[in-house]
Amino acid sequence: MSFKPKERRAAKARVAMAKAKLDALLVTDIKNIRYLTGFTGSSAYLVLTPSRVYFLTDSRYAAQSGAEVKGADIEVRICAKAVEEIHGILTGPRVGDRIGFEPDNLTYEAYLRFKKGFGNKRFIPSGGIIKTARAVKDAIELTAIKDSVGALDAGFEAARGLIAPGRKESDVAFEIEVGFKKAGADGPAFDTIIASGPRSALPHGKAGQRKMRKGELVVVDMGVLLNGYNSDETRTYCLGRPTRRQRNIYDTVAAAQEAAIKAIRPGATAKDVDAAARAYITDAGYGEYFGHGTGHGVGLDVHERPVLSPHSKDILTQGMVVTVEPGIYIPGWGGVRIEDMVLVTADGFEALTNAAKGLEDLR
Amino acid sequence: MSFKPKERRAAKARVAMAKAKLDALLVTDIKNIRYLTGFTGSSAYLVLTPSRVYFLTDSRYAAQSGAEVKGADIEVRICAKAVEEIHGILTGPRVGDRIGFEPDNLTYEAYLRFKKGFGNKRFIPSGGIIKTARAVKDAIELTAIKDSVGALDAGFEAARGLIAPGRKESDVAFEIEVGFKKAGADGPAFDTIIASGPRSALPHGKAGQRKMRKGELVVVDMGVLLNGYNSDETRTYCLGRPTRRQRNIYDTVAAAQEAAIKAIRPGATAKDVDAAARAYITDAGYGEYFGHGTGHGVGLDVHERPVLSPHSKDILTQGMVVTVEPGIYIPGWGGVRIEDMVLVTADGFEALTNAAKGLEDLR
Repeated sequence: MSFKPKERRAAKARVAMAKAKLDALLVTDIKNIRYLTGFTGSSAYLVLTPSRVYFLTDSRYAAQSGAEVKGADIEVRICAKAVEEIHGILTGPRVGDRIGFEPDNLTYEAYLRFKKGFGNKRFIPSGGIIKTARAVKDAIELTAIKDSVGALDAGFEAARGLIAPGRKESDVAFEIEVGFKKAGADGPAFDTIIASGPRSALPHGKAGQRKMRKGELVVVDMGVLLNGYNSDETRTYCLGRPTRRQRNIYDTVAAAQEAAIKAIRPGATAKDVDAAARAYITDAGYGEYFGHGTGHGVGLDVHERPVLSPHSKDILTQGMVVTVEPGIYIPGWGGVRIEDMVLVTADGFEALTNAAKGLEDLR
Repeated sequence: MSFKPKERRAAKARVAMAKAKLDALLVTDIKNIRYLTGFTGSSAYLVLTPSRVYFLTDSRYAAQSGAEVKGADIEVRICAKAVEEIHGILTGPRVGDRIGFEPDNLTYEAYLRFKKGFGNKRFIPSGGIIKTARAVKDAIELTAIKDSVGALDAGFEAARGLIAPGRKESDVAFEIEVGFKKAGADGPAFDTIIASGPRSALPHGKAGQRKMRKGELVVVDMGVLLNGYNSDETRTYCLGRPTRRQRNIYDTVAAAQEAAIKAIRPGATAKDVDAAARAYITDAGYGEYFGHGTGHGVGLDVHERPVLSPHSKDILTQGMVVTVEPGIYIPGWGGVRIEDMVLVTADGFEALTNAAKGLEDLR
């Protein structure tokens, strides 16, 4: 039996629904809806049942959903009052009593509005059903992610020519982001981080008014959003000849990243991949300066499942796309982070990002 | 007694809290937090009590919150576990039993996480307390909005030079958006709408791959985000000499807009302002082609209170900033929308947006 991609995605979700003993799932996360239907608009609801997909949007999106949302088991409904329409679908006799919803997406206000129309049926918080399915990418998604990475790698190539003493962080970020748009991207995946000098010690130091100076470290952490899929990559450069300490910290992060990447294969625990990077940095004496997780999934969201951190319970599976991004951040002095995106393959890993790597790599 | 602006904002919110008999309000909407404290970061919580403002964020934002969040009654706490910290603040004996939260912002999942730590205290959905305060702008906000409008008006000036037969909608939008960034804006306030020909009949026709053609209507609906404040304005142009029907529909929308703007003064109901535009369009025979509300508040959000629509219960007050944006959309043929931002003054209104207006106004 051959499935089309969207049908395969719904089928994956239905397996998880069945495990949770749900008769239907109300999907409100717009990226989960895009995943299941291909709809790229910004307002819709979806109801997944064992046999049907009900897609609901309003008249603004009638033409768009007609063009984008297609499938044998998908029923598109254009309606002004989606909540009432959903009550109608789900309170019918053909749908069982256990109705799941996405508790990390539905506001409390919306929860009350839905709940009061379900009569005696149960309205059950059922987190992660679609997001878990999304962690493993199919071929169409991998192509989209690789396109996004291509535009991002080109942005790093541009960055290497733009970063120089005397230039303002935000000016460089602006030029790079214009390049993303010219390459056909929707834009940056998140606020571009260009953090120079002492600001490089801030893991989220988005580009600001600071002028870069000779001898400083510059952390560049960027992403591209292209056709709905994100990419995420970090390089750290030195504006001139690195000091011994800069070199030592950079090499430590690079080796920690390599150790983590080599631990990636189907069946590995996300915790162990994190531990590989963390152990290396800790052994080198910098453990207290690596305060975040080693990585995260990337796809329709910049941050999605799995999570690569000490407390993660995720297990890596073929088709997952994760970042590996250890860092060392010394307050007041500066920091280094190196981040690549990696695909979990049948027998190991494949690096997806390809920007030139090296502390002295500025053109 | 003289208040500083942020303290005056908290005082307004406390009046509403007292009316709702709340002993404390948990504020999770990041724009509401910015409003009360000036914090421009993307992750924080706030607890408002009758005498204190507790501001909580994590170590990433320690430096930024130290610089931005100041005030006699504000206590900044940098903590890794904000939910536990909030439980500690609110379950103490000095805080009463009625704790409000923002049900339109808190997810159901977060609701459960907070609720279970409040013991016997009540956790009460209390929508709109800060958002209602935000509807009336103070002098600092008005200055920020006028700066945003200035950059936006300049964008329309640019648009008039860029829109021409043969040009692609998305290319024009891109050039205008680069101009916004060069003017120091964070970017567009929303996806720029440039909808030409039959696409002008789509109220949300964001710029696409379509090439504009001679004789067509082009709806341009844009906004700027600058220093946290939004602007929002629409013009409709004709690429050449308008037909009689294009002219007639344009003049109808323009007159409807004028009627609505003239109805704006303190004490007027939002419903009546909407009705002024709607009656004009209905009398001209186009009522069925005006499917959205006449306007909305603009500030930290592009769409905020008050709402100008047939079912609105809002009453206009001095200091409110609203859009007035009637439109006529004829499927398959095209549409016209004209939108300006208007300040409610002590005795009437003041137009804030100033882009040249006129169907044949392309340079």
